[in-house]
Amino acid sequence: MNNIGLTAMISILAAGLTMAIGSIGPALGEGRAIAQALTALAQQPDEANTITRTLFVGLAFIESVAIYCFVISLILIFANPFWGYVVTKAGG
Amino acid sequence: MNNIGLTAMISILAAGLTMAIGSIGPALGEGRAIAQALTALAQQPDEANTITRTLFVGLAFIESVAIYCFVISLILIFANPFWGYVVTKAGG
Amino acid sequence: MNNIGLTAMISILAAGLTMAIGSIGPALGEGRAIAQALTALAQQPDEANTITRTLFVGLAFIESVAIYCFVISLILIFANPFWGYVVTKAGG
Amino acid sequence: MNNIGLTAMISILAAGLTMAIGSIGPALGEGRAIAQALTALAQQPDEANTITRTLFVGLAFIESVAIYCFVISLILIFANPFWGYVVTKAGG
Amino acid sequence: MNNIGLTAMISILAAGLTMAIGSIGPALGEGRAIAQALTALAQQPDEANTITRTLFVGLAFIESVAIYCFVISLILIFANPFWGYVVTKAGG
Amino acid sequence: MNNIGLTAMISILAAGLTMAIGSIGPALGEGRAIAQALTALAQQPDEANTITRTLFVGLAFIESVAIYCFVISLILIFANPFWGYVVTKAGG
Amino acid sequence: MNNIGLTAMISILAAGLTMAIGSIGPALGEGRAIAQALTALAQQPDEANTITRTLFVGLAFIESVAIYCFVISLILIFANPFWGYVVTKAGG
Amino acid sequence: MNNIGLTAMISILAAGLTMAIGSIGPALGEGRAIAQALTALAQQPDEANTITRTLFVGLAFIESVAIYCFVISLILIFANPFWGYVVTKAGG
Amino acid sequence: MNNIGLTAMISILAAGLTMAIGSIGPALGEGRAIAQALTALAQQPDEANTITRTLFVGLAFIESVAIYCFVISLILIFANPFWGYVVTKAGG
Amino acid sequence: MNNIGLTAMISILAAGLTMAIGSIGPALGEGRAIAQALTALAQQPDEANTITRTLFVGLAFIESVAIYCFVISLILIFANPFWGYVVTKAGG
Amino acid sequence: MNNIGLTAMISILAAGLTMAIGSIGPALGEGRAIAQALTALAQQPDEANTITRTLFVGLAFIESVAIYCFVISLILIFANPFWGYVVTKAGG
Amino acid sequence: MNNIGLTAMISILAAGLTMAIGSIGPALGEGRAIAQALTALAQQPDEANTITRTLFVGLAFIESVAIYCFVISLILIFANPFWGYVVTKAGG
Amino acid sequence: MNNIGLTAMISILAAGLTMAIGSIGPALGEGRAIAQALTALAQQPDEANTITRTLFVGLAFIESVAIYCFVISLILIFANPFWGYVVTKAGG
Amino acid sequence: MNNIGLTAMISILAAGLTMAIGSIGPALGEGRAIAQALTALAQQPDEANTITRTLFVGLAFIESVAIYCFVISLILIFANPFWGYVVTKAGG
Repeated sequence: MNNIGLTAMISILAAGLTMAIGSIGPALGEGRAIAQALTALAQQPDEANTITRTLFVGLAFIESVAIYCFVISLILIFANPFWGYVVTKAGG
Repeated sequence: MNNIGLTAMISILAAGLTMAIGSIGPALGEGRAIAQALTALAQQPDEANTITRTLFVGLAFIESVAIYCFVISLILIFANPFWGYVVTKAGG
Repeated sequence: MNNIGLTAMISILAAGLTMAIGSIGPALGEGRAIAQALTALAQQPDEANTITRTLFVGLAFIESVAIYCFVISLILIFANPFWGYVVTKAGG
Repeated sequence: MNNIGLTAMISILAAGLTMAIGSIGPALGEGRAIAQALTALAQQPDEANTITRTLFVGLAFIESVAIYCFVISLILIFANPFWGYVVTKAGG
Repeated sequence: MNNIGLTAMISILAAGLTMAIGSIGPALGEGRAIAQALTALAQQPDEANTITRTLFVGLAFIESVAIYCFVISLILIFANPFWGYVVTKAGG
Repeated sequence: MNNIGLTAMISILAAGLTMAIGSIGPALGEGRAIAQALTALAQQPDEANTITRTLFVGLAFIESVAIYCFVISLILIFANPFWGYVVTKAGG
Repeated sequence: MNNIGLTAMISILAAGLTMAIGSIGPALGEGRAIAQALTALAQQPDEANTITRTLFVGLAFIESVAIYCFVISLILIFANPFWGYVVTKAGG
Repeated sequence: MNNIGLTAMISILAAGLTMAIGSIGPALGEGRAIAQALTALAQQPDEANTITRTLFVGLAFIESVAIYCFVISLILIFANPFWGYVVTKAGG
Repeated sequence: MNNIGLTAMISILAAGLTMAIGSIGPALGEGRAIAQALTALAQQPDEANTITRTLFVGLAFIESVAIYCFVISLILIFANPFWGYVVTKAGG
Repeated sequence: MNNIGLTAMISILAAGLTMAIGSIGPALGEGRAIAQALTALAQQPDEANTITRTLFVGLAFIESVAIYCFVISLILIFANPFWGYVVTKAGG
Repeated sequence: MNNIGLTAMISILAAGLTMAIGSIGPALGEGRAIAQALTALAQQPDEANTITRTLFVGLAFIESVAIYCFVISLILIFANPFWGYVVTKAGG
Repeated sequence: MNNIGLTAMISILAAGLTMAIGSIGPALGEGRAIAQALTALAQQPDEANTITRTLFVGLAFIESVAIYCFVISLILIFANPFWGYVVTKAGG
Repeated sequence: MNNIGLTAMISILAAGLTMAIGSIGPALGEGRAIAQALTALAQQPDEANTITRTLFVGLAFIESVAIYCFVISLILIFANPFWGYVVTKAGG
Repeated sequence: MNNIGLTAMISILAAGLTMAIGSIGPALGEGRAIAQALTALAQQPDEANTITRTLFVGLAFIESVAIYCFVISLILIFANPFWGYVVTKAGG
């Protein structure tokens, strides 16, 4: 039963830390992009459409990095092949 | 009973740290975006609508990263599949 | 009795650290937003209403991140399902 | 008696660190906000009322984060449910 | 006698670190606020009263955070309930 | 069964950390690039096409670094040759 | 004799670190305040009195934080209640 | 079988960390280069060709550093001579 | 003889670290104050007296923080009450 | 067989970390150089030849540092004299 | 003989670290002060005497902090009371 | 055989880390120097010869620091006197 | 023979680290001072003598800090009183 | 044979780290000095001689710090008195 406990512990820890550490970069990056977008809007109100569109495409790029982390985190919780193997083996 | 204790400990620790570390990035990012929004408002009061709208959409993007962390944290506390397995096994 | 002690220890530690680490980001972020709001007020006193309103909505966003941490921290102290299970078991 | 000692130790350590780490963010954030308020006052003495009012509301927001930490810290010292359980059990 | 020693050790360490770490934020924050106050005084000598008053109210806010740490630190040294319990028990 | 448990643990941990740490750089880098793109748009609206095109090619470069991390992370979860060897051996 | 040694060790270490770490913040904060005071003096020599007075009141605020650390440090060396208890007990 | 387990563990960990840490520098460096390229484009739209060409050659230089890391990471997973030796020996 | 060795070790280490860490803040703070004083002198040579006097009073404030550390460090080496107790006891 | 396992582990870890840590400096340095080159190009399009030539010679200097790391990393994997000795000895 | 070895080790380590860490602050602080002095000289060559004199008095203040560290370091090597006691005891 | 294994391990690790850590400073320093050289070229194209010559002499200085690290790293791998002694002894 | 080995190890490590850490501050401080000296020279070529003289006196101050570290490092290698005692004792 | 192995290990590690850590400061400091020299050259081409001469004298100062580290590193590898003693003793 040792392997089950250790695999569970590490999966929980890794899932949490992946999302936690993985949120720092995207959040700061998005904050910076939005901040500059607002400055740009204030400087060139006439280009609001171009600026907003470029901003949202860019945010999607950054958000994708956060989503990679979220995906890895959820895989580690709900679709973890190592856990599957260990549980199957313990159940046999 | 060893596995139960260890899984519980790690789940508690991971849930706490996920939310704690995961709050640094979004809070700083939102602070920056809002700060710049206010500067922009002061520069271009006439564009208050566009600026405020862009700000709130942007804040929603950043907040979503914090919410990913909150979700992972709550899953680890209340819907933790590893804990479920370990408890079920111990109860059998 | 080992599991009870360990679960209690980790819950206490995690509750404290969650709130402690979780206070850094929001406090700094709010400080930045307020600082910029005051600069904006000094530049455009006529827009005091818009600026103050945007500031308070923004502060609510940031405060919400701190409150997530507070909620997780209180859950870990007063509504901790792992502690509940371990105590129930020890009492049985 | 092991659990009592460990729970006491961790409670003391967590209470101290929660307040210690939790003081960094709010103190720096308030310092920044006040610093900018004074600059704003020097730029727009006529708006002293609005600036001061906004500053104090903002400081209350930041202070609230420090107070969350203080509350958690006092709960861990004087109203710690884990300590209560462990002591009750040891006394039984 | 083990619990007494450990509780004493941790209380001493926590009391020291709480005050030590808790002094960094307030000291830096106050330094910043005072520095800006002096700049403001040099820019607007006529507003010396408003600036000084706002500064001192602000410093009181920041100092309060340092005092929370001092209070926690003194409680841990002189009014530590965990130490009281452990000593009472050892004396019984 | 020892090797299986250890290999599983390290694979989970490494997969999580690879994606988590690997998200910091790309997210911050993309945030910076987008922020500057918006400033550039506001300065030279007539060059919107060139700027946007250069931005997206550049983002693809940065995103490729994040994707290397994602690939390594998925390989470690789903196509890990070390795990394959260890499982095959254990099954023989 | 174990408790005496451990309590002594921790008291020494905590006293030293409290003062050491506790000197960083105040020294940097005072440095900043003085530096700005000199700039202010150079800009507005006529306000030397107000500036110097505000500076010294401010330095007293910051110095008070360093003195809290010094007090805690001396208490831990010369008026340590835990050490008193442990020594009394060992002498009985 | 000990060597197999340890070699596998370290290879997995090293492969992950190499790519993870190795992504920070290139991503930030590319972000900076692209950001400045866009500023340059906005300043000198007539030199778009030279700027873009220099940018892409430069990005190739930086990307090459990331690719060194990727290569080392893949070698450690799929062409690891130490693993090969250990497995061959275990199979003999 | 164990307590003597441990107390000696910790006293040496604490004395060294207290002075070492305690020198960082004051040295940097004084450097900053002096640097600004020279700038101020260059801007307002006529106020050299006021500037120099304010500088030296300020340096005395900062130096006092370094001296607190030096005092604690010397107390730990030459007037350490814990060492005194332990040696007395060992000699009895 | 112990030495073989340990030497293999350390070689793998060192090879990975050498390349990983060794990529941070060159990538950031190249990013900075390229960024400034583009600014220079925008300021002095007529000197494009000199600027580009100086840039590429400079990048070669920086790249050489990254290549030192790559060389050390490959030597540790494929031409490691310590591994050679240990394997030869084990095979005798 | 155990205490002698440990006391020697810690004294060596503490002496080295005290000087090493204690050199960072003063060196950086002096560098800053000198750098600003040269700027001041270039701005006001006529005040060279006042500036140089103030600089050297200031450097003496900073150097005194480095010398405190040097003194502590030499005391720990050549006049260490703990070492004296331990050696005397071992020789008796 | 223990000494052989440990000496090999530490040599490998030290060789890798020496080059890895030793690449950070030179790469960043060269990046900064080159960046400023390009700015200088753009400002004073007529002095291209002096600037380029000074740059390359300076880069040679910085590169020499990186080469010291490379030399130490290669000595540790291929001309390590400690390894030589240990191997000779083991072979006797 | 245990004490000899440990004292030798710690002396080697401390000597190396003292010089290594002790080189960071002086090198950065000197770099800053020289950089500013060159700017000053470019601004006031007529004051080259005063500037150069002040620079070299200042560099001597900073270099003295590095030399303190070098002295401590050499004392620990070649005139280490602890090593002398331990060797003498072992030889008796 | 234990002392030989440990002394060798620590000497290798210390030699590597001394050079590695000791390269960071000088390389960054030289980079800064060279960068500023080039700016100065671009501002005052007529003073090229004075600037270049001052730069090279300054670089020699900084390089001397790096050479101290190199010397300590080589002493630890090729003229290590502790190693000499341990080897002599083992050979007797």
